[in-house]
Amino acid sequence: MCELLGMSANTPTDLCFSFTGLTQRGGKTGPHKDGWGVSFYEGKGVRSFHDATPSATSEIASMIQGHPIKSKTAICHIRQANVGDINLANTHPFIRELWGRYWVFAHNGQLESFSPKNGIYEPVGDTDSERIFCDVMNYIRAHLPRNATPKQLAEILVKLAQGYAKQGVFNCLLSNGDWLFTFCSTKLASITRRAPFGPARLTDADVTIDFESETTPNDVVSIVATEPLTSDEEWHLYKPGEWKLWQLGEVIAHGQATI
Amino acid sequence: MCELLGMSANTPTDLCFSFTGLTQRGGKTGPHKDGWGVSFYEGKGVRSFHDATPSATSEIASMIQGHPIKSKTAICHIRQANVGDINLANTHPFIRELWGRYWVFAHNGQLESFSPKNGIYEPVGDTDSERIFCDVMNYIRAHLPRNATPKQLAEILVKLAQGYAKQGVFNCLLSNGDWLFTFCSTKLASITRRAPFGPARLTDADVTIDFESETTPNDVVSIVATEPLTSDEEWHLYKPGEWKLWQLGEVIAHGQATI
Repeated sequence: MCELLGMSANTPTDLCFSFTGLTQRGGKTGPHKDGWGVSFYEGKGVRSFHDATPSATSEIASMIQGHPIKSKTAICHIRQANVGDINLANTHPFIRELWGRYWVFAHNGQLESFSPKNGIYEPVGDTDSERIFCDVMNYIRAHLPRNATPKQLAEILVKLAQGYAKQGVFNCLLSNGDWLFTFCSTKLASITRRAPFGPARLTDADVTIDFESETTPNDVVSIVATEPLTSDEEWHLYKPGEWKLWQLGEVIAHGQATI
Repeated sequence: MCELLGMSANTPTDLCFSFTGLTQRGGKTGPHKDGWGVSFYEGKGVRSFHDATPSATSEIASMIQGHPIKSKTAICHIRQANVGDINLANTHPFIRELWGRYWVFAHNGQLESFSPKNGIYEPVGDTDSERIFCDVMNYIRAHLPRNATPKQLAEILVKLAQGYAKQGVFNCLLSNGDWLFTFCSTKLASITRRAPFGPARLTDADVTIDFESETTPNDVVSIVATEPLTSDEEWHLYKPGEWKLWQLGEVIAHGQATI
């Protein structure tokens, strides 16, 4: 299995604190040592880092931990390989362009025998996750108008996710930079931080942060992760089938699908 | 204008030496301070770094200079903005997936009023370069079979490049990881290094390398750049309209187009 980390914020925010926590699980406090990747949106652009080495010891990961890349939306993934070899092409997040935006996807779970219909988007590597992502992108391109609202999109995404979750484990993060769609098939947690901000301590590293000194009173920053990343805050645990659509740090749509 | 750097090699090779030279021109020895990017193929996967800050002072660029990422094919670009704002979405190289491979493109020049036909691939940013890239990708998808040979591809690419070069300045690098297509409209230079390897000195930084200690006798490594990067080696200067298709460090097709 893998671990996911997503961020949705109303102001460009760095992910250093959460990223530091998550990457420990890539070979140090957790077994997810088969590569890692992160994508940060900056406007319509996206800055991605991918590495097939363990995140806990990766030089690139260590540079990101200390280099505050600010973003309103970010998606991160650390991998424990099930389907597909350990190599760069199999490292999440996966990215494709649709309607002049970059869409970014990361998946936790497995749908080993998943075989997508042929379409415009094709996988480059050989993971089930990338096959699913291409299936999602082909379906959206074929069935939605380019000016679809985030809520119209979410409706389609929930139906697709429901279908995948019936065939295996399907926790996912998907974004086009404007919104962040999150679906829980087995495990996902979230937290929204807003004023009054307090301190927080990572579960996986001896690191504490005082969010008050890093934020303004209007900031709203939400983090979604496979498991809570801090030990002294209250995280919301998604139920199986629960989904949330985030924008600017807030939930703008949510629901519960039968899976 | 911008500066380009490409590599084609028969063995995974790091680009640290050439990259160090080129990035000096991004705000130090040259005026190309409006962002930079580099893509390294690793198998079918591609590892990209993009930054909208000057490469000469970028923390990410400095990490890459000291971190030997080995690749058989790489494309790098430093930007001096003409068309399009300075932001991440406008930073080369641009990447799209076609037929299950990542295609990477960087451009030097300008075709200010270039307006592509509608197609599957759409630009995310607002540069003429990305519009051209999408035009190339849409044309290839529509006019070539997926099992086209590199030489069939080159034939089409030369025709397209010829058309663009008649509308403005069009020096480019394009790769799908298997081959590297290079076209010169005004300025491009190349060098092929093979045994017996000697030392070389960068033009833009006080750095010397002894390639013999870094290579094996069978290595063939070719570098293509807007201007020669070393002061003590003999570079081939492309003529306007000249193109070369590289694979594993060797030229596998070349020619001269009327522009």
